[in-house]
Amino acid sequence: MHKTLIALSALLAASPALPQASAAIASGKAQPSPLAPSEIVAQSPKADWAGIAASDLLVMDLAPDAKGKPRRVVIQLMPAPFSQGWIGNIHKLAAARFWDGTAVNRVQDNYVVQWGDPNADDKAKAKKLPEGLAVIPESEYEHIVFPGNRDVVITKVENSFKDNYSESAAFESGWPIGYGTITSDGAFHNWPVHCYGMVGVGRDLSPNTGSGAELYVVIGHAPRHLDRNIALVGRVIEGIEHLSSLPRGHGALGFYDLAQGDERTGIVSIRLGNEVKDLPTYEYLSSESRSFAKYADARANRRDAFFIRPAGGADICNIPVPVRRVK
Amino acid sequence: MHKTLIALSALLAASPALPQASAAIASGKAQPSPLAPSEIVAQSPKADWAGIAASDLLVMDLAPDAKGKPRRVVIQLMPAPFSQGWIGNIHKLAAARFWDGTAVNRVQDNYVVQWGDPNADDKAKAKKLPEGLAVIPESEYEHIVFPGNRDVVITKVENSFKDNYSESAAFESGWPIGYGTITSDGAFHNWPVHCYGMVGVGRDLSPNTGSGAELYVVIGHAPRHLDRNIALVGRVIEGIEHLSSLPRGHGALGFYDLAQGDERTGIVSIRLGNEVKDLPTYEYLSSESRSFAKYADARANRRDAFFIRPAGGADICNIPVPVRRVK
Repeated sequence: MHKTLIALSALLAASPALPQASAAIASGKAQPSPLAPSEIVAQSPKADWAGIAASDLLVMDLAPDAKGKPRRVVIQLMPAPFSQGWIGNIHKLAAARFWDGTAVNRVQDNYVVQWGDPNADDKAKAKKLPEGLAVIPESEYEHIVFPGNRDVVITKVENSFKDNYSESAAFESGWPIGYGTITSDGAFHNWPVHCYGMVGVGRDLSPNTGSGAELYVVIGHAPRHLDRNIALVGRVIEGIEHLSSLPRGHGALGFYDLAQGDERTGIVSIRLGNEVKDLPTYEYLSSESRSFAKYADARANRRDAFFIRPAGGADICNIPVPVRRVK
Repeated sequence: MHKTLIALSALLAASPALPQASAAIASGKAQPSPLAPSEIVAQSPKADWAGIAASDLLVMDLAPDAKGKPRRVVIQLMPAPFSQGWIGNIHKLAAARFWDGTAVNRVQDNYVVQWGDPNADDKAKAKKLPEGLAVIPESEYEHIVFPGNRDVVITKVENSFKDNYSESAAFESGWPIGYGTITSDGAFHNWPVHCYGMVGVGRDLSPNTGSGAELYVVIGHAPRHLDRNIALVGRVIEGIEHLSSLPRGHGALGFYDLAQGDERTGIVSIRLGNEVKDLPTYEYLSSESRSFAKYADARANRRDAFFIRPAGGADICNIPVPVRRVK
């Protein structure tokens, strides 16, 4: 086990000045491509895509827009082992129709859109939460990995990116994940990170961790300082523009201030995907696939016609995981 | 000179795993603060703020919104030595009233809002550009620094951040700047970087670099792969919400597609600040001030009540430079 520790430390210390998006390239897994990232995605074989179960989706229907057009936002919930306590609560809240008739209450530019019961802080008016919601401890903001064998650790680090907020960062099953340092018992921590479109759980001051009744989505530069300070439960995979283009709130922290003429956007319903009729099926480009390695390399090294100088690296949040409707 | 090179390389190699936002703290220039970044800014002495000349502002008035409310966007143009050729063109375009009656033509979610003549590509309909616009070479995407003495270089690097898109990054005169490696003649390159709110110059394929007639602003996660591939000329300091909350376009790359029901937002006028009556005076928190060092440290290490775990680092684009109206 001690040898594993040394090997990992050496690998981390040897991490080059620029991120390792091209590690897969260097090892011969994929060839540099002059294609744009979108072209690589369009040409990727069907086998490189992974389906998303309808039961892992949360479907939010906002009130129609000023022209009467429907506004649907589709959220993919995180898979185990991350944030499962809050996600269990979200299942209960959706089953109880808790969010029906609630609203978007906060839109802060370059930060978040937040929704839930606008009267949550007023005991007389607050909606009743369903019975049996779990209280989740702060320790659940991250997950402890016991890699078991050295190859697993080396593979993770080989495919990781240099990161300003963690020892390194990488994609796992299509999600952006931060890694901590390995501890003396051979374990290390990992956790989902706050990229654009990620969905988290609003909370009060510590030790409160939020129930899941109040949710937010990132609509600006990745606020990575929130990592491990608040629970992430998913990401928007379709319709984020219905949230990111909402008017910004004029109150403190971008909360809507009705006295200043702000108007909340109503939420008609939020349902789990398996309760929604005629919902399309979605799939994501597997982050373990050869196509994803080529795509990530092309995001870090743009070689398509518009670019005169490839960056030679990328921030993990500048490599959004491709998601599409199954044709 | 050779000794300087070694010293710089050593400093760069010794850069710790997490960014050096707290370099000023470690050297005793500022003490760690439990205040929120916004509180540090609010309490900073007047002497730590630097005024912005009205002639360095570009004021864009959009058509009023659906409720008849005015929509003004204020842009600060970059100071020398960066992008001055394009900025000279922008002065000429504003003086010629070129943008009056043009429109916002593109809004791509998590990327950019772009404006200019919607008929620019149609020779029969395109607005005539003013005479005498300069053609700027691609070499102007970056600037070459001859530091002259070792102390200047060391100070720059000491206050720099680890960065995924450059050797290191730092603030200079209130702007986020990337640095390249030092060359054998003791020079190094620096260039402005694409953070949220930065304004750049649309262009055609290389070697075209754009005239400045078509401008865009970043409204999503920092698209740093554009650094040194396209000219940056400024940043929005007020009113970005009038652009970031516009409806997203349904055409390719988020361009508005009128056939799909998209509607452009009209531009009433764009003027230099010194031509605008009753414009407020603006100032920015000097990036060379003690208050800024404390603010940047607090952005990288949140110690205010909401946070349970300071990040220990920050992306340069997650440290927006505070700008305010002079009281």
